[in-house]
Amino acid sequence: AIVAGLSELYSPGALQGCTVMITAGPTREAIDPVRFISNRSSGKMGFELAAAAQKTGARVIVIAGPSGEFLAAGIERWDVETAQQMYETVMQHIEDCDIFIGAAAVADYRPATRSAEKIKKKETALTLRLVRNPDIVQAVAALDQGRPFTVGFAAETHRLKEHAEHKRCHKQLDMIAANWVGRPGLGFDSTSNALEVFWEGGHVSIAQATKAQVARHLIEIISERYHAQSSAAHSGS
Amino acid sequence: AIVAGLSELYSPGALQGCTVMITAGPTREAIDPVRFISNRSSGKMGFELAAAAQKTGARVIVIAGPSGEFLAAGIERWDVETAQQMYETVMQHIEDCDIFIGAAAVADYRPATRSAEKIKKKETALTLRLVRNPDIVQAVAALDQGRPFTVGFAAETHRLKEHAEHKRCHKQLDMIAANWVGRPGLGFDSTSNALEVFWEGGHVSIAQATKAQVARHLIEIISERYHAQSSAAHSGS
Repeated sequence: AIVAGLSELYSPGALQGCTVMITAGPTREAIDPVRFISNRSSGKMGFELAAAAQKTGARVIVIAGPSGEFLAAGIERWDVETAQQMYETVMQHIEDCDIFIGAAAVADYRPATRSAEKIKKKETALTLRLVRNPDIVQAVAALDQGRPFTVGFAAETHRLKEHAEHKRCHKQLDMIAANWVGRPGLGFDSTSNALEVFWEGGHVSIAQATKAQVARHLIEIISERYHAQSSAAHSGS
Repeated sequence: AIVAGLSELYSPGALQGCTVMITAGPTREAIDPVRFISNRSSGKMGFELAAAAQKTGARVIVIAGPSGEFLAAGIERWDVETAQQMYETVMQHIEDCDIFIGAAAVADYRPATRSAEKIKKKETALTLRLVRNPDIVQAVAALDQGRPFTVGFAAETHRLKEHAEHKRCHKQLDMIAANWVGRPGLGFDSTSNALEVFWEGGHVSIAQATKAQVARHLIEIISERYHAQSSAAHSGS
């Protein structure tokens, strides 16, 4: 198989003919009609990845949780609120996707019950029972038929490499992009970011830059690994 | 005492020389560096109230939780994240305020402990212990010295009038503005709203309109009641 050279991958058109699905933003898990649990995610990183993927010629589908950020024009967008809705919407549209990037900060847990009426604050303390949400990126990576090249994200406050590599192996992802959280100027609610990217037998650090720049760099790496894996699969068959 | 006529109250200048403090937006209560509990509030209603108050000639101070909405220029703004921070910031600036409008959707509860590290999702279920946050509008209404004319908000899913009137009496508010939540096109995350406004011996319904229009109407009612109360207090002394 002919492996495309770097210059080609970096140029527009690297993902021409490919369909890329990207999840973005937080999800919201209702406690009652007013209160909810969520995550610190603006959606900006996912939206920048969508814009970067679009520039490579890909058809891009974004499944977005509640976000105040703007998405570039010409990108198919499905808005959702909960992790369960995001899971269902991803599964409805995943069939023809070549690449899946799980950039959303999906709530891992939701309240076990959702109160139809606003809970009155009578108690000085209360306990909230939480249950696990579906793991979307893991479900995509586990697809039998039409499994796309699957990229996960990991937001870590400590032991980043260990946690990210564990997550990549455990969920059988093709790649994982990890970032530190809780450090000033990076990640959530910030316009800049830095990533540590891991795949089987490889690792690249993307230095701190604007989220748009980091997104372009990550799409380049994804494109390169995606084509390398496709070539390997074809030459192996 | 001379009670100003309606036409005067409705015109710009009705709150000239007054300082109005408005809380707006949700608060966020951290579970860990990534997860949090919050409320469905865009901050739009509070910001529209600030713009409407500014147009009447008042000096306006906004204490805002995380919001993606834009605030009109020329308004003093203090950004906060948690209910505790909002409480402290309100108390720092309340001294010279004539009118306080608690339009923020303050989280009633916060997690009893905040994890410094991101909690790993090992369990299929978990419980979260929550404790009460300070009640900001109640604390303002209970001020001994320099207590402002205090307006609260109530977002209700059922028995609106009963709940709103109970809240107004219990917290000793001068006025309460109540809105339905969970009804399409109204309140949270919506550009339009409708309010039921209650005070001691009075009630006005503000019909569904844009939040800007509803805000102007509510500021008119507040201005009228504020001046009526001031006049009564002066004639009584």
